[in-house]
Formats: sequence, C-alpha cells, structure tokens
Amino acid sequence: MSSGKILVAQGGGPTAVINQSLVGVVLEARRFRHVTRVYGALHGVRGIINEDFVDLTQETSHNLELVASTPSSALGSTRDKPDLAYCHKIFEVLRAHEIEHFFYIGGNDSSDTVRIVSEEARKAGYPLRCIHIPKTIDNDLVGNDHTPGFPSAARFVAQAFAGANLDNAALPGVYVGVVMGRHAGFLTAASALGKKFPDDGPHLIYIPERTFDIERFLADVKRTYEKFGRCVIAVSEGIHDASGEAIVSLLAKEIERDDHGNVQLSGTGALADLLCEEIKTKLGIKRVRGDTFGYLQRSFIGCVSDVDQREAREVGEKAVQFAMWGDSDGSVAIKRTGYYSVDYELMPLEDVAGKTRVMEDEFITADGTDVTDAFRLYLRPLLGSKMPDAYRLRPAPVEKILNK
Amino acid sequence: MSSGKILVAQGGGPTAVINQSLVGVVLEARRFRHVTRVYGALHGVRGIINEDFVDLTQETSHNLELVASTPSSALGSTRDKPDLAYCHKIFEVLRAHEIEHFFYIGGNDSSDTVRIVSEEARKAGYPLRCIHIPKTIDNDLVGNDHTPGFPSAARFVAQAFAGANLDNAALPGVYVGVVMGRHAGFLTAASALGKKFPDDGPHLIYIPERTFDIERFLADVKRTYEKFGRCVIAVSEGIHDASGEAIVSLLAKEIERDDHGNVQLSGTGALADLLCEEIKTKLGIKRVRGDTFGYLQRSFIGCVSDVDQREAREVGEKAVQFAMWGDSDGSVAIKRTGYYSVDYELMPLEDVAGKTRVMEDEFITADGTDVTDAFRLYLRPLLGSKMPDAYRLRPAPVEKILNK
Repeated sequence: MSSGKILVAQGGGPTAVINQSLVGVVLEARRFRHVTRVYGALHGVRGIINEDFVDLTQETSHNLELVASTPSSALGSTRDKPDLAYCHKIFEVLRAHEIEHFFYIGGNDSSDTVRIVSEEARKAGYPLRCIHIPKTIDNDLVGNDHTPGFPSAARFVAQAFAGANLDNAALPGVYVGVVMGRHAGFLTAASALGKKFPDDGPHLIYIPERTFDIERFLADVKRTYEKFGRCVIAVSEGIHDASGEAIVSLLAKEIERDDHGNVQLSGTGALADLLCEEIKTKLGIKRVRGDTFGYLQRSFIGCVSDVDQREAREVGEKAVQFAMWGDSDGSVAIKRTGYYSVDYELMPLEDVAGKTRVMEDEFITADGTDVTDAFRLYLRPLLGSKMPDAYRLRPAPVEKILNK
Repeated sequence: MSSGKILVAQGGGPTAVINQSLVGVVLEARRFRHVTRVYGALHGVRGIINEDFVDLTQETSHNLELVASTPSSALGSTRDKPDLAYCHKIFEVLRAHEIEHFFYIGGNDSSDTVRIVSEEARKAGYPLRCIHIPKTIDNDLVGNDHTPGFPSAARFVAQAFAGANLDNAALPGVYVGVVMGRHAGFLTAASALGKKFPDDGPHLIYIPERTFDIERFLADVKRTYEKFGRCVIAVSEGIHDASGEAIVSLLAKEIERDDHGNVQLSGTGALADLLCEEIKTKLGIKRVRGDTFGYLQRSFIGCVSDVDQREAREVGEKAVQFAMWGDSDGSVAIKRTGYYSVDYELMPLEDVAGKTRVMEDEFITADGTDVTDAFRLYLRPLLGSKMPDAYRLRPAPVEKILNK
C-alpha cells in the first residue's frame, strides 16, 4: 500500500456531476490514515505545471457535499492537451511536491495525459500511482457502459425536446434543436427519450455516425411536415458529409459562394440558423425556428440524474480504492451488470487513452434518422428518477354550425 | 347570474403554466350546475372562427390535473392578431353556438381581442360575458404585479445563468446569453437571480429599457474581463440603438456592408453570434461563446415555479368566479398584498388591452447594466421553492516549490 500526498484535478468540458467525482476522491482519500495531504490542482494540468495547488485536507465534509451537487468543475478546468514535454513537466512538479497519487477526472484526452505521466514516472523509477476518472457528456469513452456526466446532459436534452415538442404542437412549424457531440451522437439521440405519444417529436434525428445529405434531409423534413403538419428535428453539431466535412462549414461556404464574399459564420448558433434557412427557402415553410442548446445542456443547475450523481461519486471513490488497495495504474470504467445495476473496473490506461467510442449500430434505425428500442432500453435507467412527463387532453370534437 | 355554455381558448406564446389557467377555468366552471357545456377552442381565436371546438365537459379531473402540470398550450395556440372584422366573426361563431361565457388566456394582444369581442356583443345586445386571463413570460401586462408564466421562465433563466456562470468560471472567457423580450427586460433581468458570490456572473445585463451602444458595450466587457478574467453577459433579444433600430439588424448590416453581399442573417442565433464576433475582433479575446436560450426558456419541461403554478391556476379559477358572480367583463390581474402574498382583481379591459409594461426605473441601476435590490426583492418570491444553489470550495493555497 502506498502513502503520502494525493493530487486531484479536473480537465476538459465541465459536467453537472463532475464535482461528485472530485468529492468522492477527497472524502475517500481522507479516510486513509497514511494520506497526509489532499491537494487539488486549479484548472487541470495547467494548474499542475503552474503549481496552482490548493489544500483540501481541511475542507469540511459538509461543504464538500454541497460542492458535490453543484455543476461545473469546482477546481476549474483547462482545454490544454499536453504533449510529451508537457507531461514531463507535470511529472516533475508531482515529484517536487512528493505526490504519490495522481487522480485526473476527464475524457479521453485526459486519459492519454494520465497514461503518459504514468510512463514518465515508471521511467524515472518514481513511485506514482496514476488513476484516470471518467467524465464526458459525449459518452464517447471506450470500455464504459456510459460515462458520468452523460446521463444528466441526456436528461436535459430529453426534457428540452419534450418541452420543445409541446411548444411546436401548440404553434406548428419546423423546429431544429442543435445538440453537442462532434463525433458521437449519444447526446443528440437522447432527444428521443423526450417522446411519449406516437406523433411526438423529435421526428427526425441526425447524428455524426451517419453521413448527412442535405437533399435527403430536406426530403425527410418535407415528408414529416406533410404527415404531421409540423416537424421537430434533433441535430448533432458534428454532422458531416461523406468526405467528413462539417455541414456547418459547407452551408456557410455555399452562402459565401452565392455572395462572393468572405462572411465569417462561425459561432454557436450558425448550424441551426443555416439549416433553418435551407428549410425556409427550399421547402417554402414559413414558421421555422432553430435553437442551439449550447452550454445549457452541460451546466444547467437543477437538472440532474440521480443515477448519474451516484455513479459519478462512486467512480471517484473507487479510484481511491483501486489506488490504495490495488497495484496498477488505470482508468476506472463503469460496467452494467443488470437492469439496472453497475459495477466498476480498473481498465489499462492504453485501452481507453485517445480512443473514441461512437454509437453502436444496434442503437440506430436502418434509415439513420431515429433510435431503436435497444437505445431506449439502454438510456432510460440512466436518466434517473422523477422524469417529468407530458399529458394531453382527450377531448371530443364539437359539431360545427356555421362551417358545416 | 348567467348560464349556459362556456368557451375557453389559449393565445400567443406558450408558457410552462398556461395549462394551469385552462384547467382552473374548466374545473371551476364545471362546479356551476347551470353550466351545460365547457368547450375549448383549438389554436386560439383561429379555432373559434374555424369552429374547431372540443368538449371538455367530460374530461376526467384526474387527466386535467396532469395536463395542468404539462407546459405549453394544451389546446394549441395561434399568432393571429384579430382586427375588427375578425373579432366580428368570433362573435358570430360564439352567438351561433349560444356561448355565454368567453375566457381567453393570453397577453396584451389577446386582451385587446377580448375587449373588441366584448364590444361587439354589447352592440348586438347579446348576453356574453368576456374575461381575459393573463399570461406572458415577458411580464409586460400593465396593472399586474406580474403575469403567470413569467416566474417559471424567470426561474429557467436564473438557473441557466447560475450554471453558465459556473461553466465560465471553470473555463474562463466571455459568455453571452440572449434572452427573450422585445420590449420588456424583466426576463433578461431575471438572470441576476442566478448570482450568489460577489464575482459571479452575469456581470453585465442589457435590456430594451435602455439604449444599447456598441462602443459602451465593448468598454463594459473589456473592463469586466480585466477585473475578473472572465465576463458573463445577459442580453435581451430586443436591445436597440437610440433610434429604436434593433442591434441584430445593425450588426448584420455592418457585415453586409463589409462584404458588399446580401447575406441573410435572420435566425434565432444571430444576435449572440454577432455580439461574440464583435468582442472577438474588437477586444481580441479568444474564448468567446454565445447561447440563445430560445424556446427552452418558455417550454422546458421540469423547471417550474410552484408559486407560478398556483397563481396560474387561481387566475383561471377567479376568472370563472368573476364571470359567474360578477356583472362586468374584464381582465383578471394579480396584485401583491404582502411579502409574499397576492390577491386577484378584475380590471376593465381597456386598462390592459394593447398596453405594454416595461421595467420600472427603480429596478435598473444607474449605469443601466445591472438590477437593483428592489428588483431582487420583487422577483425572488416568484421563483418559488427549492431553487438550486451553487457552492464553492474554500481551499487554502499550497506553497509553490518549483515556480517560487
């Protein structure tokens, strides 16, 4: 069993439950008598190389519990993607502070950082235990049934589409909601869990796992609009054409070509606006509205899955247990063991690092614009308890008098 | 006391609690023995002239209760703004169906419709009781302390900014959140209720009640960014220059002029994107992100104020009571009687119809970019119970070793 100082940090995009993992590490580590200090690094790996450490050893457990249920990274985060030299610096700082346990909460980039730091320590013969703790709303870590952060973001997306569908039913038209996810469509697909009645939206779902064709898209929208008198669409920000080029750039370029100008159309609302414009002009539909869910979907306070909270806490707690009682570095992974139950394993870092999981084929319908029941079964338990539900009037029509 | 058939309809933009008012009308009306039928018109006034009526007399009260807690207009809505001829048609349909009580749930346009229909009935000597029931997330009805729908939308905006602020603190930069409200800034100002710690955002709030000057805006952002290393901004979609021209059109035109093209920049994400572009290019700040809250803020399922739910129910219930026990047409208004308690009055329709309330001066700070404590006191009780709260670590810094 190792001893000494431990360090925990948070990297990449925040989630609604990432502080559960942080607090899981801190509280569990403080239970071990030989742990002398629990340090946090501010703003991820950048805080390590700058030695921006804070001492969490004497933070009250009461305040830690309150921080745990607060969204976004309490220690701050970073978008730095360390290369070998950067990782070597990280290692040098850890050695200087005599840190013997390093816990990094992050996505697949972060797991790669942990892998390299682990190797640097081994090469130098320094006893450093390195554990990667998973988090990402994209759900794109391999080897995990799902990743902490995803269920809460999925719940937000499902609730948002349930509401947008009701709004669209009251004032019919076309609604486009753009959801985060550059390579994996899980979060966009979660919109399907907002559906209840057979004619509810989202009627069409577009994800990066399938090639996006603008002509087919317009035909899909036209057909749906003719059938229901309205159309609700969920779109991943990462949709691309057959060559892999992002649709947002393609549409923006088309507009540039039309005008022989150099308009910059980068910005978060661009894809929704461009798709809406296509629908308006090509299909002649008047009421077309687009929303980009943006940062709300990952940081909204007060929309969280209780299952996600528990699991995010447990991956942090398990990380410390694996470090203290085990004998190898690794990445904590969530494995599903029942409907619904999970257990945690320590995976080799090289099995996770830098790899990207995308949606399995069995989760996507043949036409590529909807999810299967397998996906619904997969996702539903993750969303947690007390999901709000939508109800309808079941009214009897009244006979007309003047317009008979 | 009148008798016979009653008709209820919903107009304008949906809210999270508009069905509370609908159900308040239906359940209260069914308690009166002489009420023979409770009709609903589908899609507001348009459903009346098309005679698209449904009979709610035999809908179960259990299902009505479930519909009451479902956001958006269960009967459907419309954007039609009836003129005199349209109102005359409405009246003719009501007379043909022998409807003696007309309840219309909507904003100030809807109250004007009720006013004209009421006059048409009086002119024709037809005994029709007309009651307008308030709703609007914009909170812009005169004579009301606040309007049903606003508190729930305000709660969404406050929670969204509380989360966005935490996200922005973790990954510092500039964040612009665009909120609904063309003339009244109440909903944008609600973002201030997401603040807890002195350095929390939103640091700057821009509302239509004050003239927007792009140069002053950039200076505000620069000063805030230099002070906090980050900046969270809440912006009303309706911000305009001194001449009243919308900022979104001004900025879009500027880009058009730059490129000598005819780029269409209409679309819901445009204002956020254009403001972000200004900040990036003029201030040279790299990480600038914009979100447009769009339809989420008025229809999100699962984010509602319990105070709003209760009051929306009561204005529907009171509308029926005013109609059955009173002797005049009017608009139900919410009056504040304590901190916090309300009562309901019936206002003359002409006192509400077509008028727009904007934020009172006492709610806006002298510099025009923040709200006063008077506004916080005004809004806080409306947001209801169980508001999620944000907590921080209170960590002690660790002495540096390598970077001393």
